[in-house]
Amino acid sequence: MKINHELKVDLGERAYPIYIGRGLLDESGPLGRHIAGSSALVVSNTTVAPLYLEAVQQALDENGTRQDAVILEDGEQHKTLAAVETIVDRLIEARHDRQSTVIALGGGVIGDIAGFAASVYQRGVNFVQLPTTLLSQVDSSVGGKTGVNHPLGKNMIGAFYQPRCVIADVGSLDTLPARELSAGLAEVIKYGLIYDADFFAWLEQNIDALVARDADLLAEAVLVSCRIKARVVELDEREAGLRAILNLGHTFGHAIEAVMGYGNWLHGEAVAAGMMLAIDMSIREGLIDEAVRKRAAALLERASLPVAPPGEISGAQFLDAMAIDKKTLDGNIKLVLLRALGEAFVSGDYDRDKLLQTLPA
Amino acid sequence: MKINHELKVDLGERAYPIYIGRGLLDESGPLGRHIAGSSALVVSNTTVAPLYLEAVQQALDENGTRQDAVILEDGEQHKTLAAVETIVDRLIEARHDRQSTVIALGGGVIGDIAGFAASVYQRGVNFVQLPTTLLSQVDSSVGGKTGVNHPLGKNMIGAFYQPRCVIADVGSLDTLPARELSAGLAEVIKYGLIYDADFFAWLEQNIDALVARDADLLAEAVLVSCRIKARVVELDEREAGLRAILNLGHTFGHAIEAVMGYGNWLHGEAVAAGMMLAIDMSIREGLIDEAVRKRAAALLERASLPVAPPGEISGAQFLDAMAIDKKTLDGNIKLVLLRALGEAFVSGDYDRDKLLQTLPA
Repeated sequence: MKINHELKVDLGERAYPIYIGRGLLDESGPLGRHIAGSSALVVSNTTVAPLYLEAVQQALDENGTRQDAVILEDGEQHKTLAAVETIVDRLIEARHDRQSTVIALGGGVIGDIAGFAASVYQRGVNFVQLPTTLLSQVDSSVGGKTGVNHPLGKNMIGAFYQPRCVIADVGSLDTLPARELSAGLAEVIKYGLIYDADFFAWLEQNIDALVARDADLLAEAVLVSCRIKARVVELDEREAGLRAILNLGHTFGHAIEAVMGYGNWLHGEAVAAGMMLAIDMSIREGLIDEAVRKRAAALLERASLPVAPPGEISGAQFLDAMAIDKKTLDGNIKLVLLRALGEAFVSGDYDRDKLLQTLPA
Repeated sequence: MKINHELKVDLGERAYPIYIGRGLLDESGPLGRHIAGSSALVVSNTTVAPLYLEAVQQALDENGTRQDAVILEDGEQHKTLAAVETIVDRLIEARHDRQSTVIALGGGVIGDIAGFAASVYQRGVNFVQLPTTLLSQVDSSVGGKTGVNHPLGKNMIGAFYQPRCVIADVGSLDTLPARELSAGLAEVIKYGLIYDADFFAWLEQNIDALVARDADLLAEAVLVSCRIKARVVELDEREAGLRAILNLGHTFGHAIEAVMGYGNWLHGEAVAAGMMLAIDMSIREGLIDEAVRKRAAALLERASLPVAPPGEISGAQFLDAMAIDKKTLDGNIKLVLLRALGEAFVSGDYDRDKLLQTLPA
């Protein structure tokens, strides 16, 4: 076991630590310390459970924790209220009480479902995140957003609910399919674009080693990403304003995911294409110059990510899907734009014609 | 319109006012002031909507609020996740955004369902309570507990979620069936038993006038009840300890409701019988004397409430139903007992044999 970094997300009485390193899921790791009650329910999926469930169960056994597991189908299309009901049914049937802990073992989808289930079971039980994908390590495990999809929109049902701790084992990235590693890198690149030009330059230096899964560099990328996200979330936990910059590319990206059918484009892939649309829009608005587009596209391509939306989506489909996005304010679509590389802002005051030019015909 | 009382529930950034009076639901009332966004969804049921929905819609119209309504079936048996989904579906279909307000118009069941729906829709939208029953005016509209039932237990799925305001129109009690008025009085009497012997004595003086629906006295009973509940909730919002005293009679009562089938015994009726069991247990534990039992039984009977559980429930059924109650801690049933009239406490350290003697054979 090697803990490379420990980061505190400072949310007052809801503060929690993030541990980043290798081999953190076994019994010597920080898991036992953060199981408050005498019982736990591990939520995982059919892909991740065969790889890591046994180690986690052993760690819980060593701590004398009574435990159950729920193994869900893998994939965004299973991020539904029905999955939450499955978890709640198991919690009740196995008589888990208010002191129990729900442990999410898997990627962002598992974290979102399990976190939401933890938030609603008996109006809230303990929650611990063991993110096993790069995307969930740098994004969904920080900030307390949990929830599930509705047929008419992503993340329409959920809660803000903070975990007791997050344990990000970069060793689990060894088994991650290359496409999913790339999808995670899309969000890592996003942090550079919205908040930290130096980090963006660091990524330009190290992207090849990150794609080759250098563990120490991955741990550092996870740390910096979590630190940026934590800082933004600390300033604006419930997304009154600033926090929305974390959604760079997401309004476009959610539209891509919705139109293509959830699960066909990975979230990170849709965000990569969406960020390029946001950059295009920022250029049309005269905020940034072509050089940003070139650098962003080059970095995303080196990470094997798409830099344009799928050809089959029309502008009309984009607009329709975007109109019910959560970031819509009284029917007026808000966009996250860049005013420089490393500086994003939320705009409701842009030229609608330029948005139409940005979108496909 | 007459506002008799205005009470602030002081929960820091989640503080909100309770207005108590007559004729508060029409357009001149405080409703418009608390609708933050430009749209609202009114949630009501088939019993209450014909009586008050039009007045509420008119009040919203006067304020230029775009509005929709969801009318649910009446009754505790409809307090399910399916009802929450119905509300969320309507919110999405009618494109309500994060600035929308969910308005609960009805009793505790409607408040619990609508509040939970408000808490999960887009991870939380505004929520306003218009409680139309005595029970909901004195109990469920204060404290932020929302949620729905699971086939295996009451309120197993929910959230702590505070409203923007509560408007308790005692005029709406004029149309309340006598049995439901009595059920509300059970909770009013509870506040005297757990926290305020003087209020209990005031109720002994005024119970006949309250049963006869004297509006000013009802407004005063609602005010004192809400004030006691607010004080307890302020001290312990998330029920770490003290707040549990509000559950006097509820562990027994929930068991009665569960075994009899939700909706057959009213919540307040089950609580009344449950409080008598808690008093019996307190006497067996040597905490209080017979005089408390006599006064409590006399007052409950004058309010037309049961003072014993239904004969068909066995002790074994009680114990089984109580074992999955939320207040169970690691399998050990906690009870709210009285150490004096006006002073309740939570006990896990009681004689189990005395509990068995308290329950039917």
